[in-house]
Amino acid sequence: MGRVICAGLGPGDPELMSVRADRLVRSTAHVAYFRKSGYEGQARKIVAGMLNPHAIEYPMEYPVTTEIPFIDPEYNRVMAAFYETWAERLARLAETEEILVLCEGDPFFYGSFMHLYVRLRKRCQVEVVPGITGMSGCWTATGEPITWGDDVLTIVTATMPEEELVRRIRDTDALVVMKIGRNLEKLKRALTAAGRLDSAWLVEHGTMPDQRVHRLAEAPSRVPYFSIAVVHGQGRRP
Amino acid sequence: MGRVICAGLGPGDPELMSVRADRLVRSTAHVAYFRKSGYEGQARKIVAGMLNPHAIEYPMEYPVTTEIPFIDPEYNRVMAAFYETWAERLARLAETEEILVLCEGDPFFYGSFMHLYVRLRKRCQVEVVPGITGMSGCWTATGEPITWGDDVLTIVTATMPEEELVRRIRDTDALVVMKIGRNLEKLKRALTAAGRLDSAWLVEHGTMPDQRVHRLAEAPSRVPYFSIAVVHGQGRRP
Repeated sequence: MGRVICAGLGPGDPELMSVRADRLVRSTAHVAYFRKSGYEGQARKIVAGMLNPHAIEYPMEYPVTTEIPFIDPEYNRVMAAFYETWAERLARLAETEEILVLCEGDPFFYGSFMHLYVRLRKRCQVEVVPGITGMSGCWTATGEPITWGDDVLTIVTATMPEEELVRRIRDTDALVVMKIGRNLEKLKRALTAAGRLDSAWLVEHGTMPDQRVHRLAEAPSRVPYFSIAVVHGQGRRP
Repeated sequence: MGRVICAGLGPGDPELMSVRADRLVRSTAHVAYFRKSGYEGQARKIVAGMLNPHAIEYPMEYPVTTEIPFIDPEYNRVMAAFYETWAERLARLAETEEILVLCEGDPFFYGSFMHLYVRLRKRCQVEVVPGITGMSGCWTATGEPITWGDDVLTIVTATMPEEELVRRIRDTDALVVMKIGRNLEKLKRALTAAGRLDSAWLVEHGTMPDQRVHRLAEAPSRVPYFSIAVVHGQGRRP
């Protein structure tokens, strides 16, 4: 009996992988990872030079990424079929083999693996190894603690409606904003409306060699989808 | 010129330490960590058997923990003096040595090191290595993903007033509650008022050998201060 193990790889620096993930990556004979068609894939990039040269690789290529909007039922149908196909394939393989699935950050925190996980767990043994989240890597990169004392931390995606974003930003001590990309201008307006633009930071490629940390007000107009914005809490400190 | 490095040790399982933290722990000649007087200390426990036998240890013993309430000015005065004394001592040592400070979880996420950090960075070189948060370890232990799609995740401490807790629980998709301990009954009432008691989980000692996962409604009446409660998001999933 084999199994599927999903290892969180952390924010990007291979040194920030857990000891357990590092060992799994170096020893696995079967390794699967998501990627956009035509790209190497972020997870695969993190483990460059670490895999056993005889490891069999299973790149799981998203059939769509931003070509169809999330709210289109067609997006749902195509993605469900994609996850179903790979769950079936990995479960079959797990009858005899151990397969490692790579995942950036922490698998249970907005991770794509979750969609395989809920399908796989009915069919085979599945284990998940937590990882350092991308946001931890990013707030560490800013050089300022994110939460003090009894601070409330709210984590939102920049995809939400602007008014809702303003309300959430007003109603929290510390803030993390994920999935920025094309929503940067909306996020800037929302932070301005909430009076917090000047205390917001934007981190691109946190912990990676091309890491860039900006005051959000001074960020370039085009930033990667996986950029993260943070506003630090100011709670109790003796 | 030396420096101070604070390494996040992750949620408790030594295998979940980062590769970088693991190497620092095994090689350091000077290691400091917080602990309650009379106890071994959680951070020190995580690295049991890993330190170089010649490493010099600096246990930083809290002068008070729960004996004086946070809101008493005396608490503030005593703790400020404590952090100031250790910042001075570590900065002095960092003139020539490299000192490793151990920290459970992720140092910049509600960590005690932050109080040294703001004092140290004026005096010497300081570096912080992020770690897997306790909450990541705990939600992984529940076997359910914490956030899907565009879920909002709110992180609160159970120390806040009950009505505010109810309001926050009602206003989020996914929830993490830290610092539970004596506030468990208040948290139960707040979850009940918000209609979410039945979907709440409580994790004690996440990822450690004595890990226990309960439905929060069925949790024992006495739980450790560092227990974490989670309510999973139910967002978009193809």
